Amino acid sequence: MKRDIYENISPLDARYYKSNKNLMEDLAKYLSENSVIKYQALVEIAMISVMERYGIAPSGAKEEMVSALKKITPEEVYNEEARTRHNIRALVNVFQKYVDNDNVAPFIHLSATSEDITGTAQSLRIKDVTYRVIVPKTLEFMEQIIKIIEKEAGTVQIGRTHGQHAVPITVGYLFSGYLDRLGGRLIRIIEAADNLRGKMSGAVGAYNASSLLFDDPRKFEEDVLEELGLKPGAFSSQIIEPEYMLDYIHAIISAFGVLAQISDDIRHLQRTEIGEMGENFEKNQVGSSTMPHKRNPWNFEHVKSMWKEFMPRVITRYMDQISEHQRDLTNSASNRFIVEIITAFTISVDRLVKQFEKLKIDYENLKANLGKTKWMFLAEPLYILLAKAGEKRAHEIVKQATLKAEKEGKDLFSIVREEEAFKTIVKSKEWKSLESDPSSYIGKAHDRALAILYLWKSRADEIKESCKNYKEAGYEE
Amino acid sequence: MKRDIYENISPLDARYYKSNKNLMEDLAKYLSENSVIKYQALVEIAMISVMERYGIAPSGAKEEMVSALKKITPEEVYNEEARTRHNIRALVNVFQKYVDNDNVAPFIHLSATSEDITGTAQSLRIKDVTYRVIVPKTLEFMEQIIKIIEKEAGTVQIGRTHGQHAVPITVGYLFSGYLDRLGGRLIRIIEAADNLRGKMSGAVGAYNASSLLFDDPRKFEEDVLEELGLKPGAFSSQIIEPEYMLDYIHAIISAFGVLAQISDDIRHLQRTEIGEMGENFEKNQVGSSTMPHKRNPWNFEHVKSMWKEFMPRVITRYMDQISEHQRDLTNSASNRFIVEIITAFTISVDRLVKQFEKLKIDYENLKANLGKTKWMFLAEPLYILLAKAGEKRAHEIVKQATLKAEKEGKDLFSIVREEEAFKTIVKSKEWKSLESDPSSYIGKAHDRALAILYLWKSRADEIKESCKNYKEAGYEE
Amino acid sequence: MKRDIYENISPLDARYYKSNKNLMEDLAKYLSENSVIKYQALVEIAMISVMERYGIAPSGAKEEMVSALKKITPEEVYNEEARTRHNIRALVNVFQKYVDNDNVAPFIHLSATSEDITGTAQSLRIKDVTYRVIVPKTLEFMEQIIKIIEKEAGTVQIGRTHGQHAVPITVGYLFSGYLDRLGGRLIRIIEAADNLRGKMSGAVGAYNASSLLFDDPRKFEEDVLEELGLKPGAFSSQIIEPEYMLDYIHAIISAFGVLAQISDDIRHLQRTEIGEMGENFEKNQVGSSTMPHKRNPWNFEHVKSMWKEFMPRVITRYMDQISEHQRDLTNSASNRFIVEIITAFTISVDRLVKQFEKLKIDYENLKANLGKTKWMFLAEPLYILLAKAGEKRAHEIVKQATLKAEKEGKDLFSIVREEEAFKTIVKSKEWKSLESDPSSYIGKAHDRALAILYLWKSRADEIKESCKNYKEAGYEE
Amino acid sequence: MKRDIYENISPLDARYYKSNKNLMEDLAKYLSENSVIKYQALVEIAMISVMERYGIAPSGAKEEMVSALKKITPEEVYNEEARTRHNIRALVNVFQKYVDNDNVAPFIHLSATSEDITGTAQSLRIKDVTYRVIVPKTLEFMEQIIKIIEKEAGTVQIGRTHGQHAVPITVGYLFSGYLDRLGGRLIRIIEAADNLRGKMSGAVGAYNASSLLFDDPRKFEEDVLEELGLKPGAFSSQIIEPEYMLDYIHAIISAFGVLAQISDDIRHLQRTEIGEMGENFEKNQVGSSTMPHKRNPWNFEHVKSMWKEFMPRVITRYMDQISEHQRDLTNSASNRFIVEIITAFTISVDRLVKQFEKLKIDYENLKANLGKTKWMFLAEPLYILLAKAGEKRAHEIVKQATLKAEKEGKDLFSIVREEEAFKTIVKSKEWKSLESDPSSYIGKAHDRALAILYLWKSRADEIKESCKNYKEAGYEE
Repeated sequence: MKRDIYENISPLDARYYKSNKNLMEDLAKYLSENSVIKYQALVEIAMISVMERYGIAPSGAKEEMVSALKKITPEEVYNEEARTRHNIRALVNVFQKYVDNDNVAPFIHLSATSEDITGTAQSLRIKDVTYRVIVPKTLEFMEQIIKIIEKEAGTVQIGRTHGQHAVPITVGYLFSGYLDRLGGRLIRIIEAADNLRGKMSGAVGAYNASSLLFDDPRKFEEDVLEELGLKPGAFSSQIIEPEYMLDYIHAIISAFGVLAQISDDIRHLQRTEIGEMGENFEKNQVGSSTMPHKRNPWNFEHVKSMWKEFMPRVITRYMDQISEHQRDLTNSASNRFIVEIITAFTISVDRLVKQFEKLKIDYENLKANLGKTKWMFLAEPLYILLAKAGEKRAHEIVKQATLKAEKEGKDLFSIVREEEAFKTIVKSKEWKSLESDPSSYIGKAHDRALAILYLWKSRADEIKESCKNYKEAGYEE
Repeated sequence: MKRDIYENISPLDARYYKSNKNLMEDLAKYLSENSVIKYQALVEIAMISVMERYGIAPSGAKEEMVSALKKITPEEVYNEEARTRHNIRALVNVFQKYVDNDNVAPFIHLSATSEDITGTAQSLRIKDVTYRVIVPKTLEFMEQIIKIIEKEAGTVQIGRTHGQHAVPITVGYLFSGYLDRLGGRLIRIIEAADNLRGKMSGAVGAYNASSLLFDDPRKFEEDVLEELGLKPGAFSSQIIEPEYMLDYIHAIISAFGVLAQISDDIRHLQRTEIGEMGENFEKNQVGSSTMPHKRNPWNFEHVKSMWKEFMPRVITRYMDQISEHQRDLTNSASNRFIVEIITAFTISVDRLVKQFEKLKIDYENLKANLGKTKWMFLAEPLYILLAKAGEKRAHEIVKQATLKAEKEGKDLFSIVREEEAFKTIVKSKEWKSLESDPSSYIGKAHDRALAILYLWKSRADEIKESCKNYKEAGYEE
Repeated sequence: MKRDIYENISPLDARYYKSNKNLMEDLAKYLSENSVIKYQALVEIAMISVMERYGIAPSGAKEEMVSALKKITPEEVYNEEARTRHNIRALVNVFQKYVDNDNVAPFIHLSATSEDITGTAQSLRIKDVTYRVIVPKTLEFMEQIIKIIEKEAGTVQIGRTHGQHAVPITVGYLFSGYLDRLGGRLIRIIEAADNLRGKMSGAVGAYNASSLLFDDPRKFEEDVLEELGLKPGAFSSQIIEPEYMLDYIHAIISAFGVLAQISDDIRHLQRTEIGEMGENFEKNQVGSSTMPHKRNPWNFEHVKSMWKEFMPRVITRYMDQISEHQRDLTNSASNRFIVEIITAFTISVDRLVKQFEKLKIDYENLKANLGKTKWMFLAEPLYILLAKAGEKRAHEIVKQATLKAEKEGKDLFSIVREEEAFKTIVKSKEWKSLESDPSSYIGKAHDRALAILYLWKSRADEIKESCKNYKEAGYEE
Repeated sequence: MKRDIYENISPLDARYYKSNKNLMEDLAKYLSENSVIKYQALVEIAMISVMERYGIAPSGAKEEMVSALKKITPEEVYNEEARTRHNIRALVNVFQKYVDNDNVAPFIHLSATSEDITGTAQSLRIKDVTYRVIVPKTLEFMEQIIKIIEKEAGTVQIGRTHGQHAVPITVGYLFSGYLDRLGGRLIRIIEAADNLRGKMSGAVGAYNASSLLFDDPRKFEEDVLEELGLKPGAFSSQIIEPEYMLDYIHAIISAFGVLAQISDDIRHLQRTEIGEMGENFEKNQVGSSTMPHKRNPWNFEHVKSMWKEFMPRVITRYMDQISEHQRDLTNSASNRFIVEIITAFTISVDRLVKQFEKLKIDYENLKANLGKTKWMFLAEPLYILLAKAGEKRAHEIVKQATLKAEKEGKDLFSIVREEEAFKTIVKSKEWKSLESDPSSYIGKAHDRALAILYLWKSRADEIKESCKNYKEAGYEE
C-alpha cells in the first residue's frame, strides 16, 4: 500500500525520511511496521523449530515456515487482521495458508499467547537495531570526538560557569567530557539491550497451556528464546516484566540528554559575541530569509529540539510499568511508539556526525576571549598562592584586589604589582610563570583530555568487537 | 515520492493510517507535510493580495500566485530546500519560478521573515482542522453520549468510590458527567483555536523591514492576517508568543484526559465480575489467541494507551515557552510534532464513536450488582434519617448496625427491624419507601442527568452553528 | 508540634522559608496544613449557617461553630484522626466536642460527604491565595517591568535570533514582551481561580443524602457555596470535575514558563562576552569560593531551576483527571502537593521582584555590541530597499555583498559604496539616514513598547480593582 | 529556628511527618537541611585530613575540624550565608571561626570550588541513606512478600488479563512477580548508589587550583574521596557528570512504579465484586463519613497517589543533564529537591509494609471467583488438547463451543460432553483430570513461585551482608 510521503503526518516519516533516506531505511528494517511482522514471524518460526527438534512438529516444519515467510506481505496480514480483529491470530492464519495444512499448520503458535510473540519480537528487534545501527552510529560519532580531542587537547579555552568566565580549560578537555558521558551512556544502552528478555510462558505467565505439551515448559521457553539469542526473565505474567525495556529507554533518553548538552554548548559557542566554534556553511545555504548575513547554528538547535520532543516520552514508559493483574492492554498502543524514540535518537546522532565533520574552531576568537577579563581569572591562583603562603585572609584580599582592578579598569597583573599584600607573591616562580603566559593556567586539562581519550579508544575497540560477534552470531536471520 | 506505508516508522502513518484511512486522510489535509507547504503558500498569497490592494504589487499579482500554487509540488519545494538549506526561501524560489518574473516575483515574501509565514500557517491550519474535523467529530461523540443519557437517565447503577459500592446513581447520570466534562473541554478547544494568532512583524517582531515598505506596518500585518481570519498578538518577537498554542495543546490534552476517564470506567465495568457494560463483539473477532472465550475491552484499552503515549508530550510545549532572546530555533523541530498529538486525539475520539455505536448495557448485571451488599448502602439514608430525628450518635449507631449485619450475614433491613435504636425510623414513610424499593435511593441522579443533557443539547447547537459560520467564511480556500 | 526548620526535608520549608520568611508566612495562611483544617472548618460552618437560615439547625448554631473553631488546634484534629483514621470525621468530632451537644452537634456535616468539605475548601483557599498573594505579587513585578519599559522604550539593543545578531530592537521592546506574556498569564490565572468550583452533592454527586434533608438539595448546595463566594459545577461525582483545578494549574505553570524565559534571557545578557544586563552585587556577597571576581547571575539561574523542578509536576494533574467510577482516592495525596507548585511560583516571582529592583543595564555594552558586526544587520534594509526598487535578485545580491564584506573585513557601508549594484540605493534618503545612524533601524520597537505599556497599565488597574472587590467581599472570614 | 509543623507547606514536613515520625526522623538524618550542612562539613574535614596526612595542613588539623563541627549549628551557617550570599563560603567562615586561626584556618577548603563540596556531599548522603534506610526498609517489605509466597504458593486464583478472567495462577505466583520486580529494582538502586561519584577537581574540573598545591591533584582527589568511601569520575567539569545521579533516580522511580503496580492490583482485588484481598480494618476506623459500612483501600490508593506525584519529577533530572559549558547553576535549586523523591519512595515502602502486616486474603471469594465463568477458562487446555490430537481447526471449534455454552448458559464440561468434536478429548486422562479439579489448571505457577522465592531469599541474604559491610566501613562518621 503505497502513499506519498508528504501525506504522512509524522515528521519522521515525511520531512526526516526525506532528509536522511539511507539511515531511515536502515532503521526501518528493525523499526517499521514491516519489521514488526517480520520479527513476530521469526518468533513463530523459532517455536516450530524447537518443536521439530523435540519431535513434536514434523521434520521439515521449520523449513516450510521459512519458505512461507517469503510469501507473506504485511498487507495480507493486515487484511486478515481486519477480519479477525486480532493481529497475531491474523499472522498465524496467514502462515497456515502457506504451509502443509495437515502436518505443520496445527503446531503453529501452539500453546503460545499472542504476547509471547509480540513481546519477544519487540525485544529482538530492539536488540538487533541496537547492535546493527545505534552502536555503530554512536561509535562513529565518538570517533569524531576522539579526533577533535587529539587535535585540540592543548588548545586553551576560557572555562565558563554561570555564563561567566571562570578559569581556563582546553577545547580537548571540553570534548573529553562529551566523550566520557556519551561513552558511558553507550555502555548503558548495550547492557540494557543485552538484558532485554523474551517469554514463551503463555496467557498468564504460568506455562498453563505449554505444560500440556511439554514435560518441561520452562525448558521449551529457554530453547525457543535461545534460537533468537534471548533469555526469559525469572518471572513473567502475560507480559515480560516491563523494567527491562524501561531500563533500555532510560539509557537511550539519557544518551539523548548528552546530545542535547553538546548541541547547547556548541550553539552558545557560536553566539555572535563568542564565536569560538561554528558550523561551516555550505554554498547556496540561506542563513535567514531577510538577513542573508546570518550563520545560524540550526543543526545544533535541531538536535536540542528533538530532545525536547522525545525526552518527555519517557514518562509513558514509567506509566507502562503498571498493568493490572496479569495484564491490561493499556500498554499496547503506547508500546508501538517506542520505535519513534529510538529513531529520533539515532538520526540526531547522525545529524551531529554530519555537523562535526564540518565543525570549525576559531582559534583567534578563543584567544581573544581568553584575554577579555584582563586576566582576572588569575585571581584564583593568586588566592591559592597567597593562602599557601599562610595568609588567612587570602580570599578577602584577592576579592578586594579584583574589585579595585575592575573599578580602575586595570588588568590583574598591574594591581598585583601595586598592592603591598602581594609583594612576596609577585616575585614567586609560579606567579612569574603565569604572568609570562596566563594561558598556562589550565591545570591538568591537557593531561586529563588525553587520559580520557585513551580510556575510550580502548573501550570503543571492545564495543566494536562485541558488535562484530553479535553480527556473526546472526540471530536475526 | 511514494513509499509503502508499512515501511513507515510512526504507527500513526502505518498501522493507524491503515485502520482508519478516511479520517486519517481528512486529517492529512491539515496536518501532513503537504499541508504545511500549502498553508505557508496561502500566507504568502495573502501578503501579495494585500500588497496588490495597497498598489504596491501589480494588479493581478494574487491571481498569479494562486495559479502558481497549483503547479507547486512538495517534492519540488523539498528539492529546492536541499539546495538552499532553507525551507521558506525554497518555497519563495519555487513561487518565483512560476510567476511573472519582473513584476510579481520581487514582492513575494518581501519584508517578511520566515517565521511570519511558518507561525501564521501553523495557527491557520490548526484552526482549520479544529473547526473542520475535531469539533464535528467530538460533537458526533457527544451526540452518542446524549442518546445514552436519554435512554438511561433512570437506569439505576450502584455508585462506586474506591472501587467499593457506595450509593446508587443512574447510568444516565454517569454519562452526563462524561458529557459535561467533554463538552467543557470542547469549548476550551474552540476558544483556544479562536485565540491562535498570526504575525507579519519581521525578524525580531519590531516591523523593522516592513517599516520601510509600509507607512503603517502594524496595519499591514492586521490586513494580511484578516485575509486568513486571524489576528496578531499585542507583541511578537521573531515568533508568535508561545502561550496561544500552549493553551490550545492544554485544551486538547485535557480533553484527551476525559477520553481516558471514559475508557477506564467502561473497561472496568466490563470486568468479568462486574459485567455492566461491554463492547459487542463482531463475528470473526478473536478475543485471545489461546482463550477464545474472552471478551477483551481492547478498544477502550487502546484509547487509554494512546492517552499515555500522547499526554506526556505536553511537557515539550511547556519547555517550548522558552526561546532565548528574540528566538532560538530549539522549538522548530518539536513544533512540527504537535500535529501528532492532534491526530492521536481525533482518532481516539473516533475510536470511541465506533465503540459507543455497539456499546451494550447489561441490565441484569446492573440489577444483580446493586443487591450485592444486601442493601448496605442504605446505611447512608438510615444515618441521615436517624440524625434528622435528633440522634447525635447516629453515625456510630449505624456503623455498629452495619458491622453486625456483616458479621451475622443479614441484610440491612433485618437489622433495622431488630435493633431498638431504629424503632422510630423503621416506621417512617421514608424508610418504608426505601424498603419497598431500595433502588429508589438515587437522589437527584435522574433529574440532574436530564438537566445536563438539556444544557449540552443547546450548547452543541451553538457550536454547530459556529462551525457552519466558520466554513462559510471559508478562510482556507 | 514544633520542630527545627532545618530538620525539614522539603527545601521549601527549610531553606526557602528561612530566606523568605515573610512571604512564606503569608502563603502559609492559605497553603499550610493549618490552613487546610481552617478552610475545611469554614465549609462546615457555611453548611450550618445555611441550615440555620433554613430553620433546620437551631438559631445561633453558626455562632457556636465560629466560637468552636477558635478553640480547635490542628494538633487536636490530627490526634483524633490518628484514632478514627479519617480526617474529616476527626474534624467533625472535634467540632462536636466544642458545641452544644444536643442541638447543634447532630447537624454538623449532616448529609455531606468528606469530599464536599475537602474539595470545596481546596477551591476556596486556592482562590483566596490567588487574590490575596499571587495577584498582588505578580502585579508588583509587572509594575517593575512597566517602569523599565518607560525608561528604556528607546534604548537600542541588538536583537538576537539563534544567538546571532539579527536586527535591532529596544530594551523597552524586549521587556514589553515579558509584560504582555506575563500579563496574559495573570489574566488566565484569575479566570481559572474565578472558575474554581465547590460541591455539596454528597457521596456520589447525586444528592442522595441531602435529598432526604432538603426539598431542593441543589439549591442547598448553591446557597452553601454562595456563602463562600463559590459556585457548583453542572456535574459532580464524589469529587468536583478535575478540569477546573487543572486549568488553574496550567495557568500557574505556564506563567512560571514566562518567569523562566525572563530569567534565561537576562542570565544570557549577563554573560561575560555580552554584559548588557546584570544583577548589582551586594557588599559582602561572594561570587565564587575560589574565583572572587565572578558576578554570577545565580538568582536568575535559581528561578530557572525552580521552573525545572516544578513544571513537570503538571503531569500529575493531567493524570489526576482520571478517577475510576465515582472516584478512587489515588488523587488524594497528590492533590495535597499542589500547594507546593503555587508556593514555588510565588516565591519565584518575588525573587525576580527583588532582582529587578537592582537590575543594572549597561548602556556602553549595549552600544558596543550593536556595532560588533560592522553594521551587517543593515543587510536587511539594504535588501528591502533594493527589492522595492525592483531588483528581483535583491536577496542574492545582498548576500554576496555581505559575504564579500566578511571576507575583506570591511563594514557594510564601504561595500555598498563600492558595489555597482547599490549605486541608486546609496543615494537614497533611507540609506543615508541609516548610514548616519545605524541604530535608528528599530522599526516600530519604540512605539510598540509604549503601546503595550499603556495596554497593561490599564489592565493592571482593572485587576487591582477586582482584587480590592474580592477582599471587600471577604469570603475568607 | 523552631516552627509549628502545621505551618509547613510541604505535606512531607507536616502531614506525613506527623503520621510517620520515626521513619521521617531517620530519613532527616540524611535528607534534611541539617544533613546537607553536616555532610558538606564531612567533606571539608576529609580534605583537611588528607592535607594533614600530606604534611600540608598542620598535625591535629583534622581533629580541630571535628571538634569545630560539634559547635556549628545550621542556624549559624545560614546567618553567615545571609551576609555572604554564598552557602559554602558561609560554612568555611564558620569553620574558621572555631579552629586555630593561624594554622588550620587557611587550609580549610583550599583549592576546592564550592561544588567539590556540594556535589560530593550530595553523593555521600544519598549513598548513606540508601544503605542505612532504603535498603533495609525495602528488604523488610520483600521479606513480607516472601512470607506470603511461602503461605500462598499453591492458593489458586483466577488470572486476569484485560480485567477478564483468563486462566488460573496462584496467589503465591502473583506475589512472586512483585518480589522479582522489586528485588530487581533494589539491586539497581544499590548499583546506582555504589556508582555515585565525588569530585575534588576545582572550578572547571581541570584541577587548576589544586595543581598549585599538589604534585598529583588527581591523587589528592582520589585520596579525599576514599576517606568518604567514594570515587571520582573519569571526567568532571565544575560538577560531577549528572548521569550517575540520574541513574540513581531512575532506579528509585522505577522501583516506585513497582509499588504502584502492587497497590493497583490489591486495590482492584479489594473491589466489592471481587473481594479477594483487603486491608484489615482497625477498630475506630471510619470507612466513610456518610457510608459507615465501606472498607476503602485508601492506603493502597495513597501509595498510587504518591507515585503519581513523584514519578513525573524524573523529568527534572533528565533536564538537569544539560548544564551550559562548565556549568550553569540552573540545576542548583532543583537538585535540592531530589531528597523529596527519596523520602516519598521510602515512606511508601513503609506504608506497604504496614498494610501487608494486616493484609487479609479471602479464600472463599478466591474460590467463588474461580468458578464464575462456568469453567470457561478450560477452553484453553481444550483447544491445546484438540490441536495436539491433530485437529487443525481446533481454535475455531473451541471458540464455537464457548459461544454455544455462553448462549445456552451451560458450563464448559456439558458442552464438551455433548459435542461430537470432543468425543476423543472427553475421554482423555488430561481432560478427566481437569474435569475432576478445574483448579488444577495452574501450569507451573506453584513451582515457579517457589523457584523465585528461593532465588530472592538467597539474594536478600547477600544484600543484607553488603549493608552490614557498608555500616562497618562507617564512612559517614
